[in-house]
Amino acid sequence: MYRNFGFNILSSSEKSRLGVIKTPHGEVETPTFIFCGTKASVKGVSPQQLWEAETQIILSNTYHLFSYPGADYIKERGGLHKFMGWNGPMLTDSGGFQMFSLGHGSVADEIKGKRFGVPTLIKINEDGALFKSYWNGSLQSLTPEISVEIQRKLGADLIVAFDECTPYHSDKKYTEQSMERSHRWEKRSLDEFIRKNDFSQALYGIVQGGVHRDLRERSAEFVSENPFFATAIGGTLGSTKKQMYEVVEMTMGKLDVSRPIHLLGIGGICDIFRGIDLGIDTFDCVHPTRIARHGGALVKPQYRDSKKREHINLKRSEYSTDDSPIESDCDCSTCQNFSRAYLHYLLKARELLALPAITVHNIHFMNKLMKEIREGIRNKNLDCVRNKWC
Amino acid sequence: MYRNFGFNILSSSEKSRLGVIKTPHGEVETPTFIFCGTKASVKGVSPQQLWEAETQIILSNTYHLFSYPGADYIKERGGLHKFMGWNGPMLTDSGGFQMFSLGHGSVADEIKGKRFGVPTLIKINEDGALFKSYWNGSLQSLTPEISVEIQRKLGADLIVAFDECTPYHSDKKYTEQSMERSHRWEKRSLDEFIRKNDFSQALYGIVQGGVHRDLRERSAEFVSENPFFATAIGGTLGSTKKQMYEVVEMTMGKLDVSRPIHLLGIGGICDIFRGIDLGIDTFDCVHPTRIARHGGALVKPQYRDSKKREHINLKRSEYSTDDSPIESDCDCSTCQNFSRAYLHYLLKARELLALPAITVHNIHFMNKLMKEIREGIRNKNLDCVRNKWC
Repeated sequence: MYRNFGFNILSSSEKSRLGVIKTPHGEVETPTFIFCGTKASVKGVSPQQLWEAETQIILSNTYHLFSYPGADYIKERGGLHKFMGWNGPMLTDSGGFQMFSLGHGSVADEIKGKRFGVPTLIKINEDGALFKSYWNGSLQSLTPEISVEIQRKLGADLIVAFDECTPYHSDKKYTEQSMERSHRWEKRSLDEFIRKNDFSQALYGIVQGGVHRDLRERSAEFVSENPFFATAIGGTLGSTKKQMYEVVEMTMGKLDVSRPIHLLGIGGICDIFRGIDLGIDTFDCVHPTRIARHGGALVKPQYRDSKKREHINLKRSEYSTDDSPIESDCDCSTCQNFSRAYLHYLLKARELLALPAITVHNIHFMNKLMKEIREGIRNKNLDCVRNKWC
Repeated sequence: MYRNFGFNILSSSEKSRLGVIKTPHGEVETPTFIFCGTKASVKGVSPQQLWEAETQIILSNTYHLFSYPGADYIKERGGLHKFMGWNGPMLTDSGGFQMFSLGHGSVADEIKGKRFGVPTLIKINEDGALFKSYWNGSLQSLTPEISVEIQRKLGADLIVAFDECTPYHSDKKYTEQSMERSHRWEKRSLDEFIRKNDFSQALYGIVQGGVHRDLRERSAEFVSENPFFATAIGGTLGSTKKQMYEVVEMTMGKLDVSRPIHLLGIGGICDIFRGIDLGIDTFDCVHPTRIARHGGALVKPQYRDSKKREHINLKRSEYSTDDSPIESDCDCSTCQNFSRAYLHYLLKARELLALPAITVHNIHFMNKLMKEIREGIRNKNLDCVRNKWC
């Protein structure tokens, strides 16, 4: 069923593991971080720059591309890889997260440069969901079958089953009903996937269940019992870091750990280490690339100006006369060529170059972090790596 | 006086000539095009990308940098080369053009992302000019001595004497008085330059005189009789292309042609060929990089969609399904990776990547054009090159 795909666990240290995901567009060494190319582009950065920063894999968002420019359009262009000039491994999500979370208004800042505001969720029933496009206000429907069909047309290597992303404020009863429906939707996603499987894609199941142990365990068992290639942990992970780790831990306990395990939407440095401890293989988050566009540069602890943040805000006036690079030990093209003072100046002068320059650093930073984490697992000294980065 | 600089004419074909300008930051093969890095950055493009596109030389604008972040600030950062990470040859203008032309309101769109509108010229007298900063509205004065001092602090290899850029609508009497004053200002610029010459910079004189043959000739003689390293042809070149060539031709007749000759503000492809015919060595213009930010990609005649333009506008809907690159025979990273359809999509979706991607193509295009012009002069077949590009 997944004959062109594979996942090999090379070694492990406690629950942390070192692996390789095989895809038709190349191999991905895990643990790794997946960068968000939401609208078929990692904002401001070319595929060449992504390669130079040693990026292994990126993702695009089905919801955004479905609204504009459309799945058929991208298929006619030869698929997402060819369209955007990225020839490496790629993932698309199911579209569910954006539709529901944006509809609920919780991450409305997801869509920048929006033309028609955020999407509005009109109706959700057993069949699927009806919503107003963020792009032009037209009515659009998303069902498990449509989501898989769109993702087939987009052509990413790794695709995701359609689910409802239940918001944190839902009560347990709604969370349970929603989870059961998500399971039915995931089954339908799987059926649709199998019906036209041409071995160019592999399907992820998603674990829901909110913050409730019994639901998370049932959902983890559901996903593990069905022939998904890999597992994504979705839904709300609670309101605190502590709760987040608890929810991930209770989920991991019932998962088939021979499959790759992805933790959706987590991208903080210390959070990644906690996820690694619990056995997570891949992460994604808009955080590293989004903060870059607001002047935030990720730095290791010795370069920080506050214990509260894992980045420095280059807009702050203290950086206007700081002639050192973002990180003195970083070999990215930004740190090799530009000082903090220059980046501060570019931000203040609203010069475009600031955005790709800081984004390139943050991408390089995340890739370096994940590489050292892999070395830490291989050499069984992950705690040394953690002390350097977190 | 210019011991670290030089200009060798290697060969010529009629008035066109092939040369090399030697500077402390490397050699510049001429004819060539100088790209505008107005505010210490070629918008959206890194120095690394400039090198990859085979850029030889860029310029920055004294007026903009004087207003913000200031010349002393940049000097403290180690000068413009170090500050912006460009280690190649660089030119700064005198600040006169922006101050006067923006004050007159003729090229007010020069300053994008402006904070305080365009500068306002408050007063101009024998000493210099007083104006309100575009950046914060503060009063600033620019004199020949101040302009040279600022340019010394910025530290570009090639710097320019301070003059008044007389507008086209001025009458001959004003144009003559203004030219005479410009000559006195250029003398003062030269005196100030010589007073602190440390051989790290070379000074250009500027020819003024509007569209009047007798004034142009007097101005050309003035510049040639004074020990400037090179000559820039400035001021209004008339209201039509025909007049432009006439003004350049009448100026060239009286110039010392052993020096490099720069034509200010000209960047059209056919215009460049006409300039080459008349003996021009270097050109600069915001055109190639500015149109890129509006979706305009420079193309050779066989790729154009109109005889009226030397570029295609990728925002046009006809490009939404055009899977070919901007130019099929172009080896820039944009043409190697992206289709016109993708660039059209990025522009429509307001994705940041469109801007650096098209800019990189246009820079590569101009550098390729100038390289083939140099080969055409060397091989005495410039007309074949012209037929390919113009």
